[in-house]
Amino acid sequence: MLFMKEHVTKQARRAKEASRKLACISIETRDAALLAMADALEARQEEILEVNAKEVAAAKEKSTRLNMIDRLILTPKRISDMAEGIRQVVKLENPIGKSDFEVIRPNGLKIRRERVPFGVVGIVYEARPNVTADAIALCIKSGNACVLRGGSEAVRTNKKIVDIMREAAVAKGLPEKSIEFIGILDRDSVVVMCRLRKLIDVIIPRGGAGLIARVVEHSTVPVIETGTGVCHTFVDKTADQDMAIKVCINAKTSRPSVCNAMETLLIHKDIAEEFLPKIATAMIDSKVELRGDEACRKIFPDMKEAVEEDWTTEYNDLILSIKIVEDVDAAIEHINKYSSAHSDAIITRDKDNAKKFEQLVDSADVYVNTSTRFTDGFEFGFGAEIGISTQKLHARGPMGLEALTTMKYIIEGDGQIR
Amino acid sequence: MLFMKEHVTKQARRAKEASRKLACISIETRDAALLAMADALEARQEEILEVNAKEVAAAKEKSTRLNMIDRLILTPKRISDMAEGIRQVVKLENPIGKSDFEVIRPNGLKIRRERVPFGVVGIVYEARPNVTADAIALCIKSGNACVLRGGSEAVRTNKKIVDIMREAAVAKGLPEKSIEFIGILDRDSVVVMCRLRKLIDVIIPRGGAGLIARVVEHSTVPVIETGTGVCHTFVDKTADQDMAIKVCINAKTSRPSVCNAMETLLIHKDIAEEFLPKIATAMIDSKVELRGDEACRKIFPDMKEAVEEDWTTEYNDLILSIKIVEDVDAAIEHINKYSSAHSDAIITRDKDNAKKFEQLVDSADVYVNTSTRFTDGFEFGFGAEIGISTQKLHARGPMGLEALTTMKYIIEGDGQIR
Repeated sequence: MLFMKEHVTKQARRAKEASRKLACISIETRDAALLAMADALEARQEEILEVNAKEVAAAKEKSTRLNMIDRLILTPKRISDMAEGIRQVVKLENPIGKSDFEVIRPNGLKIRRERVPFGVVGIVYEARPNVTADAIALCIKSGNACVLRGGSEAVRTNKKIVDIMREAAVAKGLPEKSIEFIGILDRDSVVVMCRLRKLIDVIIPRGGAGLIARVVEHSTVPVIETGTGVCHTFVDKTADQDMAIKVCINAKTSRPSVCNAMETLLIHKDIAEEFLPKIATAMIDSKVELRGDEACRKIFPDMKEAVEEDWTTEYNDLILSIKIVEDVDAAIEHINKYSSAHSDAIITRDKDNAKKFEQLVDSADVYVNTSTRFTDGFEFGFGAEIGISTQKLHARGPMGLEALTTMKYIIEGDGQIR
Repeated sequence: MLFMKEHVTKQARRAKEASRKLACISIETRDAALLAMADALEARQEEILEVNAKEVAAAKEKSTRLNMIDRLILTPKRISDMAEGIRQVVKLENPIGKSDFEVIRPNGLKIRRERVPFGVVGIVYEARPNVTADAIALCIKSGNACVLRGGSEAVRTNKKIVDIMREAAVAKGLPEKSIEFIGILDRDSVVVMCRLRKLIDVIIPRGGAGLIARVVEHSTVPVIETGTGVCHTFVDKTADQDMAIKVCINAKTSRPSVCNAMETLLIHKDIAEEFLPKIATAMIDSKVELRGDEACRKIFPDMKEAVEEDWTTEYNDLILSIKIVEDVDAAIEHINKYSSAHSDAIITRDKDNAKKFEQLVDSADVYVNTSTRFTDGFEFGFGAEIGISTQKLHARGPMGLEALTTMKYIIEGDGQIR
């Protein structure tokens, strides 16, 4: 534990030192380094695939869950996608150096507020090796050093990706310690990282609810909470029901494993007799398992009973909980009580109810007459994202490059005193 | 402890419920309520003064520190200032409802990002009763409910202020529970507050380093760290020395008890022989106690020895630590190591050094040729501020009303699916 703590601290300190140098390196150099990293990943893909194959085999022997193994596996196509993702980041605008506030005060002081990198960004994630490449690309583009701590199942694959990318970056003039990778498998290394105030400027956890809760619980470094999605769709009494079915099926089934998929459907009581059988049948046809409250099961008995836990669960799977509610106010109340404040939708023709829903649902992304699946940096036109923030501090919703920056006030005078 | 925890949780839950109502109340009503609160404070000042006099007497009996007692005492003038402060807040622009991002996507989705209140803002502070009125005014103006937890010495004065302001607010139509005041003196009530995720949206500690560290250590609610100021001025070799003396005297002595006062002076070695005796004499004439490193004491022996602790101490008093440094790089290194990242200044005629200092000093407010004392919402033209953020997340530097808001994406469609 002591050795681990010292080691992680040393890595963060090196990243901090590198971040000072990185702050003086031009966007042209950073972009050139990113392109070189993308090329290197493709050129050296055999090395990555070899290490990865061993880790996949080891994971299978431990009979780890199948979807985890799917996330762990790399293929030439997946590596090309990683490289392509980096090239897309290069095309994005430089988020650093812009000024959004400039003023000359009556006493002659010139004040301006400039976008600057955070310094060191800590990213804690799980088994997907592509997060390694993504996170490095977004941090370097925004002038930040990074400290990465990925899942133990992928540690050697991740380390290989880091080594290849770092080597390419150094050849283009980036400081070697701009990318620090924590290779110690000790679970407590996450906690140590989260408490390195003054060395790490912000921590972004990317992963499941357990990981995020652990980071939030232990961190003294400021955290941007991302991702968990208990998303709702409320079908109001005036909804276009054909649209509602199309949108709900999309929200639930187009990619059930992601955070912006719908987990709970709320239906206005006045249309439940008519609408519930239609949507339930359509869901069942799409292989969705249904869990309903008592009122639902009276109308459509062919579903399991939903218990309290269902309302708070992110299934990440083809399962849907359904509840019949009194009106839009009851829908809003349910959402504000159970939602993870990620993405929630109303399907309605009633403009007042739409307005009320927009105003009162306390979530990052509030939808009217469309699918929650649109919560995504690309769909919003931001390009690559570092995650979806479900907290209210700093950034909320899909986080593009700007979320990886902070600002600084620069005040120039000629001897003014107060 | 159990009772206290339940009670504080109940208060926060009430504030959360009130915050939903507050979100629908117009700026006109909020402003009218604020004006009524200001009038009520003046009209009922005798009640406040009576309670305050008892608390001041009690504090004196416990022989509490003199500057704490000074902060605790209210006078008719101080109450008028509080009321006037509220009226100033009324004049500020409504920070809610503005949109800084609007787009229609190729698929027809209309996406806009709107400024919205946080919901519930928790404020933890020490003995100054005027913070109570300030905090309420800024929270109500920005559409937030608040949970206040002030210092125990002022608990009855604070409660009286809250009661008077709340009564005036309710008469104008604000929800009664918009302003919750924690009257339990138990020190652990701060910790309980800091862990009420989903009930309190952000915690802002205002006070000394101990209070802030306690909040940061225990909070799972996102925190905006404010205030501690270990501020530096570096006098470069090319500095206009008369300007440097004027600026340094201002930064140290104009109000030594505040966070933006200078605590450490750094002097370029090439001018130390000439400049140090001049500034040291001027400081001593202004009753400042000096503590210098060895190099300083060789040139000007009439000062105490500075020890390691001096470099990290916010004196809040007429004490100054002084160090001689090799060059601008060494100055920057010292600052990035010891500064609280609040406000740091360079006095120089060298534009390259000024630029380097601006770029590399990792503080919220970086000054060139002027006094660190300008870090203040009014001096920046923001009007009233809720504090000075020394962290990089969400807000940095003086925080006006905007820092008390977050944003929400609202996405309107007509049945789009992904």
